[in-house]
Amino acid sequence: MARTILLTGYEPYGREAYNPTGVIARSLDGRRIGGARIRGVQIPVAVESAGPRLRRLVRDLEPYGVLSTGVAPGRSHVSVERVALKVLDFRIPDNRGRKYRDKPIHAGGPAAYFSTLPVRRILAAYRAAGVPAELSNTAGTYLCNFAMFTVLDALATSRRKAPAGFIHVPQTPEASRDRPGQPSMDLATTRRAVVIALREIARARKPR
Amino acid sequence: MARTILLTGYEPYGREAYNPTGVIARSLDGRRIGGARIRGVQIPVAVESAGPRLRRLVRDLEPYGVLSTGVAPGRSHVSVERVALKVLDFRIPDNRGRKYRDKPIHAGGPAAYFSTLPVRRILAAYRAAGVPAELSNTAGTYLCNFAMFTVLDALATSRRKAPAGFIHVPQTPEASRDRPGQPSMDLATTRRAVVIALREIARARKPR
Amino acid sequence: MARTILLTGYEPYGREAYNPTGVIARSLDGRRIGGARIRGVQIPVAVESAGPRLRRLVRDLEPYGVLSTGVAPGRSHVSVERVALKVLDFRIPDNRGRKYRDKPIHAGGPAAYFSTLPVRRILAAYRAAGVPAELSNTAGTYLCNFAMFTVLDALATSRRKAPAGFIHVPQTPEASRDRPGQPSMDLATTRRAVVIALREIARARKPR
Amino acid sequence: MARTILLTGYEPYGREAYNPTGVIARSLDGRRIGGARIRGVQIPVAVESAGPRLRRLVRDLEPYGVLSTGVAPGRSHVSVERVALKVLDFRIPDNRGRKYRDKPIHAGGPAAYFSTLPVRRILAAYRAAGVPAELSNTAGTYLCNFAMFTVLDALATSRRKAPAGFIHVPQTPEASRDRPGQPSMDLATTRRAVVIALREIARARKPR
Repeated sequence: MARTILLTGYEPYGREAYNPTGVIARSLDGRRIGGARIRGVQIPVAVESAGPRLRRLVRDLEPYGVLSTGVAPGRSHVSVERVALKVLDFRIPDNRGRKYRDKPIHAGGPAAYFSTLPVRRILAAYRAAGVPAELSNTAGTYLCNFAMFTVLDALATSRRKAPAGFIHVPQTPEASRDRPGQPSMDLATTRRAVVIALREIARARKPR
Repeated sequence: MARTILLTGYEPYGREAYNPTGVIARSLDGRRIGGARIRGVQIPVAVESAGPRLRRLVRDLEPYGVLSTGVAPGRSHVSVERVALKVLDFRIPDNRGRKYRDKPIHAGGPAAYFSTLPVRRILAAYRAAGVPAELSNTAGTYLCNFAMFTVLDALATSRRKAPAGFIHVPQTPEASRDRPGQPSMDLATTRRAVVIALREIARARKPR
Repeated sequence: MARTILLTGYEPYGREAYNPTGVIARSLDGRRIGGARIRGVQIPVAVESAGPRLRRLVRDLEPYGVLSTGVAPGRSHVSVERVALKVLDFRIPDNRGRKYRDKPIHAGGPAAYFSTLPVRRILAAYRAAGVPAELSNTAGTYLCNFAMFTVLDALATSRRKAPAGFIHVPQTPEASRDRPGQPSMDLATTRRAVVIALREIARARKPR
Repeated sequence: MARTILLTGYEPYGREAYNPTGVIARSLDGRRIGGARIRGVQIPVAVESAGPRLRRLVRDLEPYGVLSTGVAPGRSHVSVERVALKVLDFRIPDNRGRKYRDKPIHAGGPAAYFSTLPVRRILAAYRAAGVPAELSNTAGTYLCNFAMFTVLDALATSRRKAPAGFIHVPQTPEASRDRPGQPSMDLATTRRAVVIALREIARARKPR
């Protein structure tokens, strides 16, 4: 049976009436990439539902790897995230109206997890493909960081080994048109970036 | 006989080994847009050759309108330029190795020309089409401003009436990949932006 | 009798509850700089009153030179402006509630005036003094550009020769504290920058 | 006997021929702030010497609190850092010529430490004092992050309780003059920001 890779994207939220990551995750659901079967899921932008949903997906799918994605309006490059922090600190409420400040994601456990994706290989593949990309040292403290932390924590506490991590993508040109000076990336390029990362994950070895 | 609209783009220069505007201008050469025949030309990034070339094109084609385009690495939006200044002030040499400082484009004449394009209609069309765009108050003091000034001056001094002006476009993702934080716009969106402007020019009335 | 140099700054407006340029202009009123007597005036941020006020000051003082100044929230460097455009195009109303769009400052006359200040000497003096500064190709299309245009036009149409122009200064740290990522410059450095420009104007020759 | 607060700043490095943080740390050495005695030390920008130096200072001084500081050219606000990562990843070599890539600071231990400073109180004090400041989620992966991580690790592993953390400050105007668009903060404001943080640390309670 084929390896399964879990791909998560987010639904729209706040000012972002369009979220390319949920669209791409759904559009790739069921596809084969690099020999792996993609399970593409759109996740709610709400701590209370996203947390259990992500943990359940990791437990039930026993994925070979996990790529979570989210939109970062204002960034110009695909950002491969290095680290997820054990904190919720929101500038705007989530889609359930909850707003957290300096709140630990849970008690105990490490302050942060490093991505276990083949980060440098993904970046090299982006370079080769002409996709503007960069390594990022902060995934923020909103839902994106939360998804990355939750999946890495679920894997670490279940002692399951699977490469997992997060990439942030720019907002699309269409959704940026009323925001002077906000960089954007067209959906086709962003989709290509997600596929490239999935391909690298499909050929990655288990993290130690 | 169909109206002719002159579309100019630039060749590569300096660090820009790829210039989307020359590529797009050549690819649209001979096309029909909004009932007009497009004459798409790639112009050298050199004052000494670009100046005579542009004046000759305006004189010989007697175009119904003129759209000049250039790449603005670092900008995220299509910039519809408002004004061209009578000055050359270069940070880097042009492709003939000439570097000017605070040099008037010629003696006499006004310090600047305003665009005679239907600027607001082009911006409205961009909004409707979801192309990130903005009105810009400076086309710089390099070759782009020079092309805009030269065409507007050629039209003004020959008393020919034709809508003319300039748009700056972002660099492509591929050509931005080694520049952390530099915004980009994919070639397809940029090409669409050029076509939209040409369509608005085709339906524009003569400037007074 | 000593030469008079007219220094104008602006009052607060819009979100800018504090405007360093009006404060500095008033604080330097009556001072001697480079042998010249400074006439420092705070100008209203309103086209209908600022225009006549500026023209009257130029007519009555017969100044040896004119330095107009305004705050540019978001800029990090002192900007020595190169050019003023004959246009009013406002994003926010002025202090009388008037909002203009693509409106020529008056009928006839040139589209723009270049600064007649010793721009390069001022920039060199900033460099020597360690003041972060740059040459700017746009003074915008709000009141700052209006002041610069109005003074240069008043001088040009009266055939009086006097170096005149504009510098934009950053907002202060105090007034920037609620604006994440907005650069600032402390009042002492900004004041020093204004004095340096006045000193260069005092020793400048008449423009041709 | 008075409480001691350790204040560290850095020496110049790379393109930064001037580093305000070392200057301020040395200038505050021996001063009393908020009832505490300040021990201000300039630290070398070199992993091999900075690490042992910082650990020795923490061990020997048994400080009541530790504030480490570094310059962040390109930032406009004082950044109160939230977290230090267990990684060295350098864009430029340190002052001993060493360049690390994705290298863990040491084997074992948590991936990150959160600041134990009264971060929100320091930010509130900055707001009250009109100092532009922000909470930052990344201290980078160069020497600044290294100092923050090393001190927090030294305290954690010795089970000593002391509020400790890091603030990044903008470069000065003088040192920014050749960098178009780079924000800056004058030395007096930056020094005031350091003193304000020290005062809050002096009145802070031990972290749990």
